Amino acid sequence: MKKIKTAIIGASGYTGLELLKILINHPVFEISYIGNSEGGMSLCELHPSLIGVFDMNVSKADAKDVAKTAELAFLALPHKTAMGFAKELLTLGVKVVDLSADYRLELDTYEKHYCKHEDKEHLKDAVYGLPEFFREDIKRADLVANPGCYPTASLLGLLPFCDIIDERYPIFIDAKSGVSGAGKKCTSKTHFVSIDENCFAYNPLKHRHEPEIKEKMKMVCGVEFDVNFVPHLLPLIRGEMCDCYMLLKDEIDPLKYLREFYKDEKFIRIIDRPVDLKSVAGTNFCDIFVKRVGKKLYINSAIDNILKGSSSGAVVNANIMCGLDEDLGIPKIAYVP
Amino acid sequence: MKKIKTAIIGASGYTGLELLKILINHPVFEISYIGNSEGGMSLCELHPSLIGVFDMNVSKADAKDVAKTAELAFLALPHKTAMGFAKELLTLGVKVVDLSADYRLELDTYEKHYCKHEDKEHLKDAVYGLPEFFREDIKRADLVANPGCYPTASLLGLLPFCDIIDERYPIFIDAKSGVSGAGKKCTSKTHFVSIDENCFAYNPLKHRHEPEIKEKMKMVCGVEFDVNFVPHLLPLIRGEMCDCYMLLKDEIDPLKYLREFYKDEKFIRIIDRPVDLKSVAGTNFCDIFVKRVGKKLYINSAIDNILKGSSSGAVVNANIMCGLDEDLGIPKIAYVP
Amino acid sequence: MKKIKTAIIGASGYTGLELLKILINHPVFEISYIGNSEGGMSLCELHPSLIGVFDMNVSKADAKDVAKTAELAFLALPHKTAMGFAKELLTLGVKVVDLSADYRLELDTYEKHYCKHEDKEHLKDAVYGLPEFFREDIKRADLVANPGCYPTASLLGLLPFCDIIDERYPIFIDAKSGVSGAGKKCTSKTHFVSIDENCFAYNPLKHRHEPEIKEKMKMVCGVEFDVNFVPHLLPLIRGEMCDCYMLLKDEIDPLKYLREFYKDEKFIRIIDRPVDLKSVAGTNFCDIFVKRVGKKLYINSAIDNILKGSSSGAVVNANIMCGLDEDLGIPKIAYVP
Amino acid sequence: MKKIKTAIIGASGYTGLELLKILINHPVFEISYIGNSEGGMSLCELHPSLIGVFDMNVSKADAKDVAKTAELAFLALPHKTAMGFAKELLTLGVKVVDLSADYRLELDTYEKHYCKHEDKEHLKDAVYGLPEFFREDIKRADLVANPGCYPTASLLGLLPFCDIIDERYPIFIDAKSGVSGAGKKCTSKTHFVSIDENCFAYNPLKHRHEPEIKEKMKMVCGVEFDVNFVPHLLPLIRGEMCDCYMLLKDEIDPLKYLREFYKDEKFIRIIDRPVDLKSVAGTNFCDIFVKRVGKKLYINSAIDNILKGSSSGAVVNANIMCGLDEDLGIPKIAYVP
Repeated sequence: MKKIKTAIIGASGYTGLELLKILINHPVFEISYIGNSEGGMSLCELHPSLIGVFDMNVSKADAKDVAKTAELAFLALPHKTAMGFAKELLTLGVKVVDLSADYRLELDTYEKHYCKHEDKEHLKDAVYGLPEFFREDIKRADLVANPGCYPTASLLGLLPFCDIIDERYPIFIDAKSGVSGAGKKCTSKTHFVSIDENCFAYNPLKHRHEPEIKEKMKMVCGVEFDVNFVPHLLPLIRGEMCDCYMLLKDEIDPLKYLREFYKDEKFIRIIDRPVDLKSVAGTNFCDIFVKRVGKKLYINSAIDNILKGSSSGAVVNANIMCGLDEDLGIPKIAYVP
Repeated sequence: MKKIKTAIIGASGYTGLELLKILINHPVFEISYIGNSEGGMSLCELHPSLIGVFDMNVSKADAKDVAKTAELAFLALPHKTAMGFAKELLTLGVKVVDLSADYRLELDTYEKHYCKHEDKEHLKDAVYGLPEFFREDIKRADLVANPGCYPTASLLGLLPFCDIIDERYPIFIDAKSGVSGAGKKCTSKTHFVSIDENCFAYNPLKHRHEPEIKEKMKMVCGVEFDVNFVPHLLPLIRGEMCDCYMLLKDEIDPLKYLREFYKDEKFIRIIDRPVDLKSVAGTNFCDIFVKRVGKKLYINSAIDNILKGSSSGAVVNANIMCGLDEDLGIPKIAYVP
Repeated sequence: MKKIKTAIIGASGYTGLELLKILINHPVFEISYIGNSEGGMSLCELHPSLIGVFDMNVSKADAKDVAKTAELAFLALPHKTAMGFAKELLTLGVKVVDLSADYRLELDTYEKHYCKHEDKEHLKDAVYGLPEFFREDIKRADLVANPGCYPTASLLGLLPFCDIIDERYPIFIDAKSGVSGAGKKCTSKTHFVSIDENCFAYNPLKHRHEPEIKEKMKMVCGVEFDVNFVPHLLPLIRGEMCDCYMLLKDEIDPLKYLREFYKDEKFIRIIDRPVDLKSVAGTNFCDIFVKRVGKKLYINSAIDNILKGSSSGAVVNANIMCGLDEDLGIPKIAYVP
Repeated sequence: MKKIKTAIIGASGYTGLELLKILINHPVFEISYIGNSEGGMSLCELHPSLIGVFDMNVSKADAKDVAKTAELAFLALPHKTAMGFAKELLTLGVKVVDLSADYRLELDTYEKHYCKHEDKEHLKDAVYGLPEFFREDIKRADLVANPGCYPTASLLGLLPFCDIIDERYPIFIDAKSGVSGAGKKCTSKTHFVSIDENCFAYNPLKHRHEPEIKEKMKMVCGVEFDVNFVPHLLPLIRGEMCDCYMLLKDEIDPLKYLREFYKDEKFIRIIDRPVDLKSVAGTNFCDIFVKRVGKKLYINSAIDNILKGSSSGAVVNANIMCGLDEDLGIPKIAYVP
């Protein structure tokens, strides 16, 4: 099959590395450009674990250079930096999968929770990259905004039920993430001694993924839900769990309902016991368990935060945008044991 | 001060060891008897970390022998085994602090969730050992039932608010525990490879601590709340967090309210940011953070599951039963870093 | 390319799972038979992380059934059990890669450290499956004995130097392994609470991998070295490090020497700073760092104990036995981050 | 007993916190001054785990202020900064226990491995604070240099054998430390994602603790040994193990020899199986196991790096300097489980 040249901009962080790990072995996408903010080193200097596997120069990221070598670019950049590149790349005719928050939200929501938007034009046409719900739009998109990791796990659990959830009551999401979710930057929270043998909530009821979940629930369901989100940091590297608590209008069989709902999806596994992080670590799967008692519903979903919640999700979107099989080159085998 | 002779029955497990570690340095309680199901070894054979610190014979546990040497006994035994010993010890005039579930619940609740009760007579007079709420009863008790670890952390967060919680709506408790809570027995769940870099819920919405929380809330508040409890296992040894989500009737300032409520308590710390497990590990503290948005309340409490949630809580109860200072010999300095 | 049917006997343990994970995506080997000691379940019941990836029946292992469906069998069985199957399979014309210790050692060494050997006939022709040193023999072998994990990491570091090591002085090997090396069986040593935040040596100077290292050094170098081996358990899942200390006859440049020695090897990476476990976890690489001060040499090697030290090493051997490219289908991308 | 006022200078780091945790409950030492480089906060702001336990102002460290309030000062400062304070404090008549490297070494050794020494006068009289070997000198000292953590564990294992070790051969020390040993500063090495599930050597054969071990062996034994030291970082917080490999002149019974050698020491435990880190974490014990095969000796010692290897060791020295019982207020009960 004809190769498609792709660029990775923002190769230094964890999601950049995960993109590389997937694309190195991808049968169609070929890495033609790797950029970061500095440039001037080899990839193996940046990520020594790739020695003996793959190497090329890392350039100081420049949109014009990208446009010369690639048809599609993955942006693994901080928000705000991302939209600068996306705007220029799209103008130069390069398709973009953006892993930042810059094109995920409607303008008002974005500016309230992040900063002033500098590419309103493309924002209008950006597609939210959750293929289980926006597949047809992704097929036609030039710009896909990859969902946040917490919204990915939360929405995949919640959206199937949105006609049945009683919107008069709050939805509570108690989320748990491994430390890779906090990024590569060394802070007092990511110091080994701070988080090993420890666990704590952060930004309770004010994390920026809360409005993202809310907005997308409204977009899909047409209803404004009262979403309340509390994330926690766990002493592990990979994986994210979202535990959602709510009230239903009806006493349906949620497991059966979910199995039917997702029966054609390749990356959703409905599990009949509580999910665990290791069974999804290293993969693009979202595992979901669900239990109802009376009208109370408990949804328990798990993903690999830097794969399904970021980099492998991004490559799935790129597959769809390019008319390839959705699971082409996508990791499915977990890091167990 | 005159020494009080005490026995520890069930010295082999984690809570037995924690009792030993506290009592070895306690200024009034003196360990006069240590028993387990087998006997015939020295304490340092059972717990080699005590070599050079403290040693004595471990006996095959026998209530009559206990009664000859001790005024008060701690039972760190499985439920059902515990009530056999308690019954005999109480009849022989020995005060009992029972760390099992055997005397925590009303008869019906107990028999529904555990097994047939074999000591109904003493069950009637047993006092629930949560000193912050039952201090006066503990002072006069011969038999104190030490609360479960999850109920300890949950109730200390919930009970202050029970007049203000809207009982028409469910309370959801998302709890997280270190592996010591699963006991010393080696199972597929406690194998290092199973839980390291992992996290999973277990017994969601059907754990036996759920009815305990519910029953005690009713006892204290007079209201039957709809309590829904989902515990998780975390890849760490010590510590337990309970995150409680609910609706309030009124929009009070919960932090101020809680500070006032617990102002005289030595082992409750109201914290103005999310709690963390390490700040309580090794201590008898319960740390509580609380946040309200609209009528939604988030309570976030943390304890050391085998101390405040078990062994140090038990010694506090013994202190109260014997007229000693509540914090005599009780650990307050966390294992940080 | 024509598929080659292969069997995995002993699918329940960690090395069985790793074999499965490699063979599922292997371009030539096709899994035609999976057996364990019980049979009667599906593979996904045994390893739920494979749900949605691959499934087939697991049979009660039977050599005759294997011979009907497979040309080559991987034995991921305990020693002693393995030789029973190997003997029968070889007689039936099935090639065997044995991951146990049964065919690794000369008869005397084996019977001294393990048990009576029950397949002396095939033992004579078994080839020690370290391709970097026995590649030509493996090409012609029907039975390959996969090396132990510690010998793999130790020998790959030591053998290049065997002409230069001063044999009058002992070689000390201080080895460190993740808990997957201790197997899936739950014991007091593999309980999470026992090994988390802990580290300890086990079987110091009497581990059964010590004679294996010694014997193979003699086989390759013709010299009997005084090998002294102390393994440790580390609080992590995957990975193994061997630190070897010795005296040299000459003051060579060991890094340059090693680079030259291994220049054609695809799975040996000579690193110019100390190796780390994560850069090899998930791969078939052996990373080696080496430093000399005066005549003292320090060799520092790392592998994934259940891949290069077991299952991926076994598939490399199978590749060679079947005339395939040595690195066909072999994992090279580490689990970092 | 009359209280002795003490100061802690350098209260922000891990060893500062450990000093505080010991001194808060010490029966004779009373904390009269706490200083760090900034001052102007309360102790509980610096170490929130002490809320409800102990609080006082933290001052911007000033030697003259210390001299007004304290008879003895603990310096938990970086090397170089420490000698500035020590010099001034000693001149003002305050006894000093210095936890840095500034007074541990002879002038030449110090200046070769650290920097120019700025207090040569007091360096001459400083006593090396390893009480098992320098107790009588410590009794009379005004300035005690607390040993490095690795030298503590190594020397306590090696020194008893120094008459029997064959000095013609090298001693190899393979050491392993928890991450608290790398300090509170957040670096790429101490990021959780870097060291969790990982292990690596650092500064092999060139760590600054190597000359310290060598110098003290010569001081005690009169012989210059060829000490070769390779430290590793382990994915855990507390604890340090030193594995020493060497040749002996004679085939003695090392366990019996060691038991006799240390028979009067309160903080040395000779163990008849390999030591483990958790049995010493939280205590001032040094556990030692030893095994000989032929003339080869393996010494396996473990300490808590920030207690016996630093802060509790420092308080033991202060006890001795002040004529108190050596184990007064010193922690002996490990953090197990």
